[in-house]
Amino acid sequence: MDLISKKFEKLGVENAPGQESLQKEVKLKFRGEKLQGELVDFSHGDVDAHEPIPGSLNSFIEGFQKGGSQAYTEYRGGLKTRQDMAKKLGNFTGIKIDPDREILITSGTQGALFLAMGATISSGDRVAIVEPDYFANRKLVTFFDGQLVPIPLDYLQENPDGSGLNLEKLEEAFQQGVKIFLFSNPNNPTGAIYSKEEIKKIAELASIYDITLIVDELYSRQIFHGFSYYHLCAQNVNPEKILTILGPSKTESLSGFRLGVAFGSSTIIDRMEKLQAIMCLRAAGYCQRVLERWFDEPKGWMDKRIAVHQKIRDDLLQIFQEVEGLQIRKTEAGSYIFPKLPPLDVSLSDFVKILRLHGNVIVTPGTEFGPGFTDSIRLNFSQDPEQAKKAVHRICEMIERYRK
Amino acid sequence: MDLISKKFEKLGVENAPGQESLQKEVKLKFRGEKLQGELVDFSHGDVDAHEPIPGSLNSFIEGFQKGGSQAYTEYRGGLKTRQDMAKKLGNFTGIKIDPDREILITSGTQGALFLAMGATISSGDRVAIVEPDYFANRKLVTFFDGQLVPIPLDYLQENPDGSGLNLEKLEEAFQQGVKIFLFSNPNNPTGAIYSKEEIKKIAELASIYDITLIVDELYSRQIFHGFSYYHLCAQNVNPEKILTILGPSKTESLSGFRLGVAFGSSTIIDRMEKLQAIMCLRAAGYCQRVLERWFDEPKGWMDKRIAVHQKIRDDLLQIFQEVEGLQIRKTEAGSYIFPKLPPLDVSLSDFVKILRLHGNVIVTPGTEFGPGFTDSIRLNFSQDPEQAKKAVHRICEMIERYRK
Repeated sequence: MDLISKKFEKLGVENAPGQESLQKEVKLKFRGEKLQGELVDFSHGDVDAHEPIPGSLNSFIEGFQKGGSQAYTEYRGGLKTRQDMAKKLGNFTGIKIDPDREILITSGTQGALFLAMGATISSGDRVAIVEPDYFANRKLVTFFDGQLVPIPLDYLQENPDGSGLNLEKLEEAFQQGVKIFLFSNPNNPTGAIYSKEEIKKIAELASIYDITLIVDELYSRQIFHGFSYYHLCAQNVNPEKILTILGPSKTESLSGFRLGVAFGSSTIIDRMEKLQAIMCLRAAGYCQRVLERWFDEPKGWMDKRIAVHQKIRDDLLQIFQEVEGLQIRKTEAGSYIFPKLPPLDVSLSDFVKILRLHGNVIVTPGTEFGPGFTDSIRLNFSQDPEQAKKAVHRICEMIERYRK
Repeated sequence: MDLISKKFEKLGVENAPGQESLQKEVKLKFRGEKLQGELVDFSHGDVDAHEPIPGSLNSFIEGFQKGGSQAYTEYRGGLKTRQDMAKKLGNFTGIKIDPDREILITSGTQGALFLAMGATISSGDRVAIVEPDYFANRKLVTFFDGQLVPIPLDYLQENPDGSGLNLEKLEEAFQQGVKIFLFSNPNNPTGAIYSKEEIKKIAELASIYDITLIVDELYSRQIFHGFSYYHLCAQNVNPEKILTILGPSKTESLSGFRLGVAFGSSTIIDRMEKLQAIMCLRAAGYCQRVLERWFDEPKGWMDKRIAVHQKIRDDLLQIFQEVEGLQIRKTEAGSYIFPKLPPLDVSLSDFVKILRLHGNVIVTPGTEFGPGFTDSIRLNFSQDPEQAKKAVHRICEMIERYRK
């Protein structure tokens, strides 16, 4: 097999969220009857059940009608949009952002992550990645020929005080030559938030070891009752060594527009723009206009969204907690839960297929978030509440049928 | 300077089309008065002067209203869209395209080019690139650590019989281990079309030397009177070694949606999907819906668009031809002209800035299309016809002022 084939062998997509239709059918031995119920796809949020920010379509239409100047923005995004975003995200995070030099509009937060990694990793560079964390992070390191250094997150502690990040291992990794540390906060897939102490310690270690920090804050607006959130960029860190990524996507149900924002180090932003120029030129011009609705939702809209999702979380957790031997961390932010299943006598890969084909429920296998998570599944619970509960009951029924 | 900084040093964007506002102001010695007239930006087409395909906004709105299934398509694009595109592009090119395996919807044709190069180039691979050709091609080879092998295009022949591609040099390059040949047809920036004989010869050489062909056919719908076009994919080539890229952009004024399509080799398409999954997940879901309008324009719409552009071409050529010592090839397809200027006593880089700051005309320097084109400028003439003529008069006046 040639080099390029080998590289792409490592980048499978058939188990990634939303790609299930590409899976080849395999011979599975089903137990019991097929469970009836409407299909629930927990691989991503349901934007029909939780609608986009009001007015977002209107903003798009105004962008279209604006014509050429909106269609052909600078590669880093239209100036007016950058100014608006710099102000809003500056307020949100508590830092000052220069709209000319320190911010870039991207094709989704995925686009921002790709550009950030492409702009910082040289072949062979060591990159620290949390496990579990967002499924694309490890693939990005592989694609850019970096060397993956996994840092464990002990997210299942009884009385969690912070996310459970192993800070000793992180310092060890930094000592051993890691150049870049990429992590999501809130953590995807567990919904854990990094505590103030953890964030301060990461900032301190990064300063000592001169690490480039890339922080994916995609879910940082949907914080549930009782939890606090700390932006790493607002700590005492070298502003030229940190990049923060945010976007209006899941929380705001705006994924269909593919919008993301990266801000921070002007050196990294400059490189990201160069890469974006050859990657896709710019985020779709007309879509960029929709960002004006972000952080400008109608009064009470975000509060209601958080409350609705907190209720779904509580309902689903209650159902899961009745399963003997199943472990789960209560989601602190965002819309994911990552239950660790009791021992089964089928493989995780087969179990996920069984759920889909015999239970009408789509979930993402834990192995997408780290090779060790062969006993966990991820659910995005931004779904219709009633259907979601029924679907979780079906998952629980299947766990019993296939329990070891 | 570290490795990654060096790499990005080579990927400048400040002279790229549309990026002129990022250029640092320099001290220029202007001659004569500032020329008056409305700003004309020849760096890209004017979608206000030449409007998008009718109904494209409606298709977008329908996509938005469809909700989740449109927002979250498979990474390779929604199945219905792929089926529609496979059929239309199959008819257009004269080949059969499998919608499941051989086609991918991308984030603009730029996205398709990036994915195609990322999916085929291994570090050190030799890649043949035509000079002049689209400005991003060389940067893509650099970014993916390929080795650039330039193939000259003698586009200024008196009586051109074909594009002027140097087929001997191409065969030599293939003999010397080139793995991939990437070129645009019609050629950007010259507007030259490859003849039937050239296309047949490229197919033959590619078969002999087992070359992967990547053909950017972005302008292949806008063919001017008297010229014929031949799709390389319809020739006798190994279908697993060719990828064709098209998109509704300049010709159709749909750039603001960022849509492209790649079709051909299922091996390459599979890899491109894997890369797209970590690059930006998918082309914006709602935008994908707009593709239904492409190749389905109202009767006569494309004919009219071609006729209007042919008239602009003829008018601008007539003005340019009055300049002594200026050489130009008559555009055969697409909306570009690439005049070679007579000797000036300022650098091309300064002359382009003078045009912008003192002549209210934006053009792209020839050096974006190959390092040797220090005496050429590129214009996208998809502009308001009257304004375009006035702007070309201003360019001619400036040539006289700065003539050596």
